[in-house]
Amino acid sequence: MGDAPARTEFKVTTGPIRGSRKIHIGDRRVAMRAVDLEPSSGEPPVVLYDTSGPYTDPASRIDIMAGLSELRAAWIRARGDVEEVDARETRPEDNGQLGPDRSGGVSPFPNVRKRVLRARAGANVTQMHYARRGIVTPEMEYVAIRENLGREELLVTRDGQDFGASIPDFVTPEFVRDEVARGRAIIPVNINHPETEPMAIGRNFLVKINANIGNSAVASDVAAEVDKMVWAIRWGADTVMDLSTGRNIHDTREWIVRNSPVPIGTVPIYQALEKTGGVAEDLTWEIYRDTLIEQAEQGVDYFTIHAGVRLPYVPLTAKRVTGIVSRGGSIMAKWCLAHHRESFLYERFDEICEIMKAYDIAFSLGDGLRPGSTADANDEAQFAELYTLGELTKKAWAHDVQVMIEGPGHVPMHKIKENMDKQLAACGEAPFYTLGPLVTDVAPGYDHITSGIGAAMIGWFGTAMLCYVTPKEHLGLPDRDDVKVGVVTYKLAAHAADLAKGHPAAKAHDDALSKARFEFRWRDQFNLSLDPETAEQYHDQTLPAEGAKTAHFCSMCGPKFCSMKITQEVRDFAAKQNAPLKQSLTVKEAEAGMARMSESYREGGDLYVPIVP
Amino acid sequence: MGDAPARTEFKVTTGPIRGSRKIHIGDRRVAMRAVDLEPSSGEPPVVLYDTSGPYTDPASRIDIMAGLSELRAAWIRARGDVEEVDARETRPEDNGQLGPDRSGGVSPFPNVRKRVLRARAGANVTQMHYARRGIVTPEMEYVAIRENLGREELLVTRDGQDFGASIPDFVTPEFVRDEVARGRAIIPVNINHPETEPMAIGRNFLVKINANIGNSAVASDVAAEVDKMVWAIRWGADTVMDLSTGRNIHDTREWIVRNSPVPIGTVPIYQALEKTGGVAEDLTWEIYRDTLIEQAEQGVDYFTIHAGVRLPYVPLTAKRVTGIVSRGGSIMAKWCLAHHRESFLYERFDEICEIMKAYDIAFSLGDGLRPGSTADANDEAQFAELYTLGELTKKAWAHDVQVMIEGPGHVPMHKIKENMDKQLAACGEAPFYTLGPLVTDVAPGYDHITSGIGAAMIGWFGTAMLCYVTPKEHLGLPDRDDVKVGVVTYKLAAHAADLAKGHPAAKAHDDALSKARFEFRWRDQFNLSLDPETAEQYHDQTLPAEGAKTAHFCSMCGPKFCSMKITQEVRDFAAKQNAPLKQSLTVKEAEAGMARMSESYREGGDLYVPIVP
Repeated sequence: MGDAPARTEFKVTTGPIRGSRKIHIGDRRVAMRAVDLEPSSGEPPVVLYDTSGPYTDPASRIDIMAGLSELRAAWIRARGDVEEVDARETRPEDNGQLGPDRSGGVSPFPNVRKRVLRARAGANVTQMHYARRGIVTPEMEYVAIRENLGREELLVTRDGQDFGASIPDFVTPEFVRDEVARGRAIIPVNINHPETEPMAIGRNFLVKINANIGNSAVASDVAAEVDKMVWAIRWGADTVMDLSTGRNIHDTREWIVRNSPVPIGTVPIYQALEKTGGVAEDLTWEIYRDTLIEQAEQGVDYFTIHAGVRLPYVPLTAKRVTGIVSRGGSIMAKWCLAHHRESFLYERFDEICEIMKAYDIAFSLGDGLRPGSTADANDEAQFAELYTLGELTKKAWAHDVQVMIEGPGHVPMHKIKENMDKQLAACGEAPFYTLGPLVTDVAPGYDHITSGIGAAMIGWFGTAMLCYVTPKEHLGLPDRDDVKVGVVTYKLAAHAADLAKGHPAAKAHDDALSKARFEFRWRDQFNLSLDPETAEQYHDQTLPAEGAKTAHFCSMCGPKFCSMKITQEVRDFAAKQNAPLKQSLTVKEAEAGMARMSESYREGGDLYVPIVP
Repeated sequence: MGDAPARTEFKVTTGPIRGSRKIHIGDRRVAMRAVDLEPSSGEPPVVLYDTSGPYTDPASRIDIMAGLSELRAAWIRARGDVEEVDARETRPEDNGQLGPDRSGGVSPFPNVRKRVLRARAGANVTQMHYARRGIVTPEMEYVAIRENLGREELLVTRDGQDFGASIPDFVTPEFVRDEVARGRAIIPVNINHPETEPMAIGRNFLVKINANIGNSAVASDVAAEVDKMVWAIRWGADTVMDLSTGRNIHDTREWIVRNSPVPIGTVPIYQALEKTGGVAEDLTWEIYRDTLIEQAEQGVDYFTIHAGVRLPYVPLTAKRVTGIVSRGGSIMAKWCLAHHRESFLYERFDEICEIMKAYDIAFSLGDGLRPGSTADANDEAQFAELYTLGELTKKAWAHDVQVMIEGPGHVPMHKIKENMDKQLAACGEAPFYTLGPLVTDVAPGYDHITSGIGAAMIGWFGTAMLCYVTPKEHLGLPDRDDVKVGVVTYKLAAHAADLAKGHPAAKAHDDALSKARFEFRWRDQFNLSLDPETAEQYHDQTLPAEGAKTAHFCSMCGPKFCSMKITQEVRDFAAKQNAPLKQSLTVKEAEAGMARMSESYREGGDLYVPIVP
């Protein structure tokens, strides 16, 4: 494995997010970021959720060759239910290197572990297992603090429509435990990925987003993929899926996992297929099982497993406009048809659960029959599979294995809610994890937006995690800029969902930015943005002068014509009268006030009398 | 007016939209575009709505200095209800040129009309007036053909949720007349803007989008604004609003109107304010009235008039997070407070109607008290104004004047539908015309997306026209690229709304693109996109070779791993059995089929037996 050209020049972006300060809360040192506002605001710092890990912490020393420090290592060991074993030996086929040709290979990760953890014989190391036994783990405590974002200090009035979710005013560790125990939330934390900062996926928590990275047979290399991971979490990706295919899958994944503070997901069938040289019919349970173990030992936190693509459902897709578009789904469909046998993923599901619980890997039950066009949305193939995923959820829960459910895809707006409702009913409120959905197919090049619309809506309806789509979807592989645009778009969709659901911290963030805007605190406005750099850059394109950042006007209206300035005058005008104004007057009160005002005018009184009810 | 530096170098984009052919349907020569598909598809050309006017017609000669040809001139004259009068003379203050300083001035439009049209004494030249008298105008015929997009030949099954709209299977001229007569749709067509290709705004028609352009006191010039107009309609803007402030307003508008095939809207109070030197208190009915006449004679098709900002509503905004953010609203609020008098727009509304009906200008009743942040959405100020707009709608309708109603703004998702429901009820189904709404305030730089989400939703609920938002919203003035991104984003939002409402032509477009995608007809996929250039460019970034455009795979999966290819194999596999497949099997049928299949396998039959119910 030593003759590959060394590519050790990893450039990843470090340093604070513009205008934010890294903070660590409590004994568990929960990472967040604080945005200090201009003194004129008279307001405390705004605390924001932070997925970026140590990369944005000036106090951290980043060494990509060594990997991140192991926040959770002691927590895992302290539970006394794991043992150290020799790691499975890497084989050439793990990297798609079946022949002697190693050209295009990547350096293996230098700090690779020879010993890995797994559950002791008979033990179950899942967060769900602990939760169901009433144990509040450090991971749950971390999540509770992280989710609150200091909301105990917020004076926000709850306002939202949550479609039956149960978002608490304040998240306690016990609440987290209960949600995990019920299966309504998962904390994806493989015991071999102690670098993770724990996070929860569930509809009573903040809506999360996932970014996909991964090399493919056609392009990409490992350095670019690690950089994309760091870049994606900088802008807000809560989890990252490595969807690599082709060569160097194993080594690429090792680099990514060792350097990732967020949960990593994969689709193991991609690698298993590589081990057969790409021939779906040659896949076997043994190859697949070996791949699960291989990835479990590396520390992958959740596996997409398309165990719901059952043989009888395959013909349901034959008359679709776009057939089967899930890669995993089509591989399994081909396997089922070729052998005209039931899927081994479905038949071996209990055995898969045994592996998952030995490492605490969460299922992301794949929707291999999801629609690939708005025309195919909500059809029988899709829902037949969903019901099977519901059945498998219950099986996994019987093993105390954590589960989320993948969802579409391509769905016109009027069919989105049905997806959420059916998923909640069929899968016992297990977290839903959807890809968009795209609400139309006519805008390739803008599918981050066509899907961002669907994502915001389904997030509002109850989806717990949204899988991002970049502008390159359906056209090519995303580059660094595409990853950023995809992540920010999904972050705003998730935030819009939180706001509509009535999440207190979401409203606080919106209001802080709106106040900054109204008061022409330009720097605060930039710093509170999901993408401070772009906001400032756009501002500077029209009004580059430094003075314009403190100016009480903007380029849209100019100094004379500013509506916000006029509003301030309206307020000042009212305030001059030295009378308190009610938060909101009724129209009737206001009209009565006007009548009195006119009267006082006729009597030679003040120009304007504020309305005191 | 002759000493301004001549700026005659107008560069506007002409030539066909990539992959589209200009076509003209019927005697009225209704402009559309057709996308020819690859012969392998075996499908007829896809007909798409086309807002781009003669600029994309290779048979047209474009001369910006002369203006467009007058499609409607003969139709207008033939009605025998207009007379030609001397145009109001342009005054220096019309261009904000109160002093002798003419630096920064623009050349007046060379082909300016000395004589203009207005209704004969006692005549009413509105499309609503004709409609109510049972007259089907050429404009209504044009709209009917334009809206159909050849849908009579489409075999699309209706599928949608239209929230009580009445979208017909096929649009007839009589249907258009009826919708205009009821006030449920408007056709904004000033008799002094005969260059327009008529279009309808109403919830039973395709959802329309508006693009704002306009110089401001801080930046921009006339050449850039004309170019932006041409550029905006190329990508799909159905109407364009000229929101210029500062200098050269009159001349800039003349250039735009004379060269615009789409309706032009303005906010006359902006220009009226310039005539007072920017002092809101100095506004008078006389200045405002003069401005209406000035713009009516130039051919502006709709006026935003903030007549619903009544004095008693102003205090309702004082405790808002962001007060009054509408420019027109804040001007009127300031005027009302300063004079502590009721708005002259409200008091003189009947007089305004008299002007509107003499030129057929439609009202766009402005929402001067719209929320400027999600925090302020759906508050009492906003809805108090909306009810007044409903009252004014009925007044305008008594004059047979066409009306649409402007809506917000900034609204979290859970409060969007209430806006639509209240608007429909208060304003008697007059078309709603909303600005987004933005569903969150935390993403400056991405407000085309935060607002595109709200726009798609409210368009689905029944909004007839969506006012675009560019990425520069809240930060700076949009450049050419921003205009394009804004237009395409709103076009996809409007299309997603049409699709969800069940518009037959919308579904046909989606399906055509999806089929092209599934069959790897890359060129068809690009050509059917809302932005063919970006789609192709993104594709080429990963797979630039010409051969890749006919390749039966793409860069996401590569040649070995293509799920669409596998689906085709699944289909071929099924087809080989020479048995018809039902459009969709029930799960029960499929399971029964599987049982039979297994049976036949055990008996040594074919590998796979398709399911015949």
